[in-house]
Amino acid sequence: MTTKRAVVLLSGGLDSATVGAIARSEGFDVLALSFDYGQRHRAELDAARSIATALSAADHKIVGIDLRTFGNSALTADIAVPKDRDAGEMANEIPITYVPARNTIFLSFALAFAEVARANDIFIGVNALDYSGYPDCRPEYLAAYQAMARLATKAAIEGSQQLEIRAPLLYMSKADIIKLGTDLGVDYSITVSCYDASPTGEACGHCDSCVLRMKGFTEAGLEDCTRYARQREAL
Amino acid sequence: MTTKRAVVLLSGGLDSATVGAIARSEGFDVLALSFDYGQRHRAELDAARSIATALSAADHKIVGIDLRTFGNSALTADIAVPKDRDAGEMANEIPITYVPARNTIFLSFALAFAEVARANDIFIGVNALDYSGYPDCRPEYLAAYQAMARLATKAAIEGSQQLEIRAPLLYMSKADIIKLGTDLGVDYSITVSCYDASPTGEACGHCDSCVLRMKGFTEAGLEDCTRYARQREAL
Repeated sequence: MTTKRAVVLLSGGLDSATVGAIARSEGFDVLALSFDYGQRHRAELDAARSIATALSAADHKIVGIDLRTFGNSALTADIAVPKDRDAGEMANEIPITYVPARNTIFLSFALAFAEVARANDIFIGVNALDYSGYPDCRPEYLAAYQAMARLATKAAIEGSQQLEIRAPLLYMSKADIIKLGTDLGVDYSITVSCYDASPTGEACGHCDSCVLRMKGFTEAGLEDCTRYARQREAL
Repeated sequence: MTTKRAVVLLSGGLDSATVGAIARSEGFDVLALSFDYGQRHRAELDAARSIATALSAADHKIVGIDLRTFGNSALTADIAVPKDRDAGEMANEIPITYVPARNTIFLSFALAFAEVARANDIFIGVNALDYSGYPDCRPEYLAAYQAMARLATKAAIEGSQQLEIRAPLLYMSKADIIKLGTDLGVDYSITVSCYDASPTGEACGHCDSCVLRMKGFTEAGLEDCTRYARQREAL
């Protein structure tokens, strides 16, 4: 029997680490794909490498692209990351951490990787509940992407690929994601969620992503093994 | 009145130069977008710069991405470019010059650029007739891409953008493209179509793209001002 292969978009965060574990649990060999996109939180890439190793990934490609060319996001430009907002404030608007067309660009590289590697499935850790209001994390967006992708490749036309965009976390709360990942053996201490992490991967404890992560661990009743910067511990 | 802005994907070839001239003729300010994607025919990028200047482009971004990461195409890997095939042979199969998911990746960067620059239109020079069999040059693909793009961005959700993917050459023959471009004042001598051009932009005269270009000029009854490599002239 041929081993099934799946491309897994691996950011280095909690969600994508969980998605990778789900792909493994379904019997897929993992082809990990990460991006060096001029992000401020480069500790993510080190985390992605550790996660790929933990997943026994068959391959891990890190593609260099420069989203700073277009600017306009706190994740890539010199704009302050918002801090200490509660979930209600986050839900009110699409935040400045939105990177224009990021998931569209990431999925497009995943599509190229999937075609070349003859993988049928692309796993992405997007979430429609705790998702900070990003347009490209919504189910209707993902469905439209899949419809486009099924027309886009030589493999699709020749009938050897029927691409599936898999977003298993789409309707899960952060707490449920953490519980599932813990059951699947994910070591969350090697993941980095923070939008403003230190070069060594210490989380700020105050950005939207840190706030959602802490809330998730609390609601899951599990210990948060994240390394936070000292100023947080001193609070 | 606010000037209309359009992102124009500019490869440096005949088709995209014509598309840029069409956008200008419709009153758009041109935001040119090119890619340095490890292509073998790098003379294209020099041509793209000259074309952007000729179009008085308001901006010209060249984004570096490495499609060689995934390999598997004669345009990016060390695979021979097919030569001296007629149109019938080209139509029989998707050629080795197909780059996996290339237009999907290019359009995704164009989408990011359009959102940041508040442009509503993206122009792309794809063609469904002389198109060498690429899946991502078909009208159904472009329609699916547009449907996805309209769900993908913050600007789309907020109602400030209703993205249009414009492919004005889709149903035109190469000869008609050349006649239209000539009417619009395109200087085709600065364009490079060849898949295997010399570093200084001399065309090989034998690859699919050269064969289609020569046939187009002949059928248009116009002089082909392309610079061909000496071995061609000696034939």
